[in-house]
Amino acid sequence: MLDKSSQSLLDQTQQRLKVSLAERDIPKQLRDAMSYSLLSGGKRIRALLCYAAGLALDAPLQRLETASAAIECLHCYSLIHDDLPAMDNDDLRRGKATSHIKFDEATAILAGDALQAIAYDLICSESAFSDKQARQLCLLLAQSSGGVGMVGGQMLDIEATQQQLKLNALENIHRRKTGALISASVVSGAICADTCSEQQLEGLKDYAQNIGLAFQVVDDILDIESTTSELGKPSGADIALEKSTYPALIGIQASKELAQKLYQRAIASLAPIGDNTDLLEKLARLVVHRTY
Amino acid sequence: MLDKSSQSLLDQTQQRLKVSLAERDIPKQLRDAMSYSLLSGGKRIRALLCYAAGLALDAPLQRLETASAAIECLHCYSLIHDDLPAMDNDDLRRGKATSHIKFDEATAILAGDALQAIAYDLICSESAFSDKQARQLCLLLAQSSGGVGMVGGQMLDIEATQQQLKLNALENIHRRKTGALISASVVSGAICADTCSEQQLEGLKDYAQNIGLAFQVVDDILDIESTTSELGKPSGADIALEKSTYPALIGIQASKELAQKLYQRAIASLAPIGDNTDLLEKLARLVVHRTY
Repeated sequence: MLDKSSQSLLDQTQQRLKVSLAERDIPKQLRDAMSYSLLSGGKRIRALLCYAAGLALDAPLQRLETASAAIECLHCYSLIHDDLPAMDNDDLRRGKATSHIKFDEATAILAGDALQAIAYDLICSESAFSDKQARQLCLLLAQSSGGVGMVGGQMLDIEATQQQLKLNALENIHRRKTGALISASVVSGAICADTCSEQQLEGLKDYAQNIGLAFQVVDDILDIESTTSELGKPSGADIALEKSTYPALIGIQASKELAQKLYQRAIASLAPIGDNTDLLEKLARLVVHRTY
Repeated sequence: MLDKSSQSLLDQTQQRLKVSLAERDIPKQLRDAMSYSLLSGGKRIRALLCYAAGLALDAPLQRLETASAAIECLHCYSLIHDDLPAMDNDDLRRGKATSHIKFDEATAILAGDALQAIAYDLICSESAFSDKQARQLCLLLAQSSGGVGMVGGQMLDIEATQQQLKLNALENIHRRKTGALISASVVSGAICADTCSEQQLEGLKDYAQNIGLAFQVVDDILDIESTTSELGKPSGADIALEKSTYPALIGIQASKELAQKLYQRAIASLAPIGDNTDLLEKLARLVVHRTY
């Protein structure tokens, strides 16, 4: 689904992640668990969003490599912890055994913890960042991934299981659980640039908010319409867990129309960015039209 | 055991922690769990070490409040995760039910995750720090608490259960598991100062390394010689878990002599710091002569 140039950007991020783990004196079992989850791929949409926003504003590649790597560390830690028996209790992720199945529960908890820490380590030890950029990035990542953002969303999501949510409560969960880090991915690309106007930043934030929500709506649709082998994780899991979803609340057809509307809004938000928005547009399409 | 001026420093940190949780839009159940563990006290030795090093070098109080608060967030997250059923499986901490007992396992995992994130949030949003200081502090905290440091030590500690370790392997575990963050607490105080010479920094690092190890040696001794009510957690837990300890490896008398020797080395390391080392000296005594 990715073209050659996008794939080559992700190869850079992958390489940065590999080296970052290899060059640190991390105990073997912990390093193995971190590598297992971090280097096993996944869609890397967050990394691509960071590149896409950064390249639209002429940010240097070295900065984008590091910022995208840090974001993937945070995303990866959240998946490992979400999959734990006490949380979603998933055995399968991206078609492979989840961390606590492959290793054990203690190792999975620690691998997640260490992946969270290494995100800040990567940012702060990257010489291509000014002190101000490093600080802005750490603040952005801490707030979007923490109790106000991603972790808070996960908490609300767990509390909402077996409850019938209203649409605005469902949106509050998704805005935090997936939206906050997706938005941070886009904004981090802008921080990597030497200049970004207020208007451009607002445009990028609107873009991110729309595709963040679209991402979740499509996720809910795919949970119903795809097979386990297509998803690389059990399909129908939302229904089994009695989770509130967009299809459950507004129906599958209205969910598809909503995804389409969010896509169009995302594209419209890019007006102030300039000419170099190809990758941002392509990613919006990818998010809405993906099949896994 | 603490005098009035040390207690008043800790009151400042406590207040900062309270306000930091209150002013952020964190879902209630998550905030309750974060507050429960974070504000329930404990010895706060790491916060005091940060103050002690900082005050010896005339660092502004506002910076020390924030740095000490961030460190206590990291320490607290590690305790919550260490207590989990898949890890040490402790029901009791500081005489109170542990997080997963008081709330549930999912909430405890998420509270730990959010406390890790908020540490970086606190540092980066503190206006009293220069960009350079914020970056240095984030890097120090990420490296000392991550896979190379604290989390790595916890991994090695789990692997070592039911194994007979050699002394250097035991020291490697403790250097990472508790030593790294204790050392970072001292160094963070120095980063908060406007000036700190290389020689002073080396002295502080030596001091921190010695009392970090002493802390663990004394911990092992207390596990044998104290009661559960004195410790606020089950005594004899190390023996029950067949953990390698200093008393098990070198005997209780030699362990006590080692703690005393480490104390003397810590005091000697303070020579280059200047006259204002009262609190650093007092903390070294506190670490070695504590009874809980």
